[in-house]
Amino acid sequence: MSDLPLIVAMETHDIRFPTSLELDGSDAMNPDPDYSAAYVVLRTDSGVDGHGFAFTIGRGNEVQTAAIAALEPYVVGRRPEDLGALYKEMVHDSQLRWLGPEKGVMHMAISAVVNALWDLKAKIEGKPLWLLLGEMSPEELVSLVDFRYLGDALTPGQALEILRRAEPGRAERIARLKAEGYPAYTTSPGWLGYDDDKLRRLCREAIADGFTQIKLKVGADLADDVRRMRIAREVCGPDFRIAIDANQRWDVGTAITWVNALKEYEPYWIEEPTSPDDVLGHATIARALAPVKVATGEHVQNRVIFKQMLQAGSMSVLQIDAARVGGVNENIAILLLAARFGVPVCPHAGGVGLCELVQHLAMFDYVAVSGSRRDRVIEYVDHLHEHFADPVVIENGRYLAPLAPGFSAAMHPESISAYAYPGGRVWAEETVRGGVA
Amino acid sequence: MSDLPLIVAMETHDIRFPTSLELDGSDAMNPDPDYSAAYVVLRTDSGVDGHGFAFTIGRGNEVQTAAIAALEPYVVGRRPEDLGALYKEMVHDSQLRWLGPEKGVMHMAISAVVNALWDLKAKIEGKPLWLLLGEMSPEELVSLVDFRYLGDALTPGQALEILRRAEPGRAERIARLKAEGYPAYTTSPGWLGYDDDKLRRLCREAIADGFTQIKLKVGADLADDVRRMRIAREVCGPDFRIAIDANQRWDVGTAITWVNALKEYEPYWIEEPTSPDDVLGHATIARALAPVKVATGEHVQNRVIFKQMLQAGSMSVLQIDAARVGGVNENIAILLLAARFGVPVCPHAGGVGLCELVQHLAMFDYVAVSGSRRDRVIEYVDHLHEHFADPVVIENGRYLAPLAPGFSAAMHPESISAYAYPGGRVWAEETVRGGVA
Repeated sequence: MSDLPLIVAMETHDIRFPTSLELDGSDAMNPDPDYSAAYVVLRTDSGVDGHGFAFTIGRGNEVQTAAIAALEPYVVGRRPEDLGALYKEMVHDSQLRWLGPEKGVMHMAISAVVNALWDLKAKIEGKPLWLLLGEMSPEELVSLVDFRYLGDALTPGQALEILRRAEPGRAERIARLKAEGYPAYTTSPGWLGYDDDKLRRLCREAIADGFTQIKLKVGADLADDVRRMRIAREVCGPDFRIAIDANQRWDVGTAITWVNALKEYEPYWIEEPTSPDDVLGHATIARALAPVKVATGEHVQNRVIFKQMLQAGSMSVLQIDAARVGGVNENIAILLLAARFGVPVCPHAGGVGLCELVQHLAMFDYVAVSGSRRDRVIEYVDHLHEHFADPVVIENGRYLAPLAPGFSAAMHPESISAYAYPGGRVWAEETVRGGVA
Repeated sequence: MSDLPLIVAMETHDIRFPTSLELDGSDAMNPDPDYSAAYVVLRTDSGVDGHGFAFTIGRGNEVQTAAIAALEPYVVGRRPEDLGALYKEMVHDSQLRWLGPEKGVMHMAISAVVNALWDLKAKIEGKPLWLLLGEMSPEELVSLVDFRYLGDALTPGQALEILRRAEPGRAERIARLKAEGYPAYTTSPGWLGYDDDKLRRLCREAIADGFTQIKLKVGADLADDVRRMRIAREVCGPDFRIAIDANQRWDVGTAITWVNALKEYEPYWIEEPTSPDDVLGHATIARALAPVKVATGEHVQNRVIFKQMLQAGSMSVLQIDAARVGGVNENIAILLLAARFGVPVCPHAGGVGLCELVQHLAMFDYVAVSGSRRDRVIEYVDHLHEHFADPVVIENGRYLAPLAPGFSAAMHPESISAYAYPGGRVWAEETVRGGVA
């Protein structure tokens, strides 16, 4: 393996987009986000680079960037050989672990670095990440997972069994992905900051664009939510899936009351009804609101909380995020857990580059883990893709399978430079600086 | 309230002690900690300062320090008026919240700043913190708590009821604390790095010093643990409480097997048998190992996980930490939850200054919340107290009630300067730099 390139430097960048100037991205808990990336580039001696990032929504992105920099000793001077071992080394660092363990800023930093290593590895192998993973043997995939704390729900043997069961159909599913892509749903119509006319227009556009599911943000004002949900249902018709998303706004009791008041408009799922830490609370809500599904995961910190949510029946839709848990490796563990419990994975996306990343994980799941696209959709939000070198391509409501080598994580150098905070060109402009809180 | 001093500056310090050179603090998950503090000083225009810190064990302390610095806009230019409102402002910052929410580095940073504000407030009022809180009205105390996500376990009305029930005996309990102090147990004999002779000697010293409980670290090697537990039981005798602490080392099944193998030596509690995130796992372990108690909390990230652990029967001893959850305010919520579920609180301490801080919270609990010291002990570890201006005083196995105004959080200026990382005098010495990993 010594012909792999040597990582010779790690660069970090604090990149922020002044999205709070528009009301894109506004929801009940996040009224004014400035979508940001704590961005990392791993430079090698061969000229191939690995790119990764943690997504944040503005303030504190410098802390996130500092956390990534703290991981430099783990990668500089190393080669991207065994990414299972390297991931576990970082997660188990006996001193850094105290800052989590496996949660929050430090874990998101590990995510960024692990994902950058996978971007590098996939470029070296000349394959898009979903295909690189989708062609690995079940044994190789199992070696990437940290099974600590999973023993009462998923053993290495059980994981192997899941992966072996999906092996026979891999080639056919790879071909289908290349031909058909993967279904998407769109959140673009549903931001809280949009008025009714804009909601109506964007619902019509979503249908025209071939989507079969949209999502509305809810949770700020019940009367507004009833009105917006009625409008969306009128425009979309009775058989169209409309999910709703409270972004953690409620206590358990409020979640049940509020969603019951929207039930006549048949929400497909209620997303993040309460704290992402509340396994038992989600289970109570799920029992009370069935058949409305409960979806959560974008803020679930790690596989230990996902494990419990599956054990307790807290969710009937599992929403992985590509850049919050410990990167590709921990997401493989979570996909395996979901498969073991028979719960469909519908990834969270949006923000900065989350669509670009997470499509690879959903496609890998289809190829090699669950083997199914049934009731599975990847979130799509039409923001900020222009800053990426290999942006997602959506056609007729579907993500087309990315074919370029890597993890689609690289941003254009001009974007990195222009949106650098606080020194970049965009932030130097008076209008932006004055407009952002 | 405008006669309160104005906070004019925030200083942060990255302070590290090279404790990995000895094997103090060594356990199954933390073999080589360098006990550290991400330290904050709030300077005011009146000359009174507020001190606080987050405790870490070395690497990453610079990230923790950066996270504290990110909170400067919340305190500089403000007066320490309504600390309930100010705490909630920080926790609910719509952008910083994304970095948790309410967990990990960013939440520990809030803890440090909130605790510094309380240190300042108590100094202004001329009282030790435990007494300042212990003399507040139930209504004032309830206003300090963030009840979000607690509604299914604790409402403001129920909290008021708990506090009112404890009101009549407050004066008597304050007098008893001043006369008798609060019971402690000691972890000093039990570090994994110590040999059997040192263990034996330190057990004897613990008994001679008046302690009625000790704690041993376990989890690295079962045969070693059996031998060490047998030695401790021989030295301490049959009626002495010996707790054991696995520091999150095990999966659920291993925890049950391992502790069963130690059961003949009658461990009093098993602490941190598995991931601090695993509510359901702890509940399974608690059911399997009764009557051995399950204790956890030093790494529990916030009140939402504590709430569930109480709801699920995951713990029969709740261990608050003064500097991990959102500081004094969130710990009041947790003390109220413990009282509501009838679970005794036995605080985690040790590290850098955690004994100094947490004694105030246990004493406040006795005065105004649970009203009881029964089956309650504060951990005591005899490290690093010499760096504090108002160090804990232990007499006959009890913490004496601190009487100096404040939260006992201030370190000596000479210690802050000598142990500053990496520029301080101690770190400049070749022997230290060479010895620490």
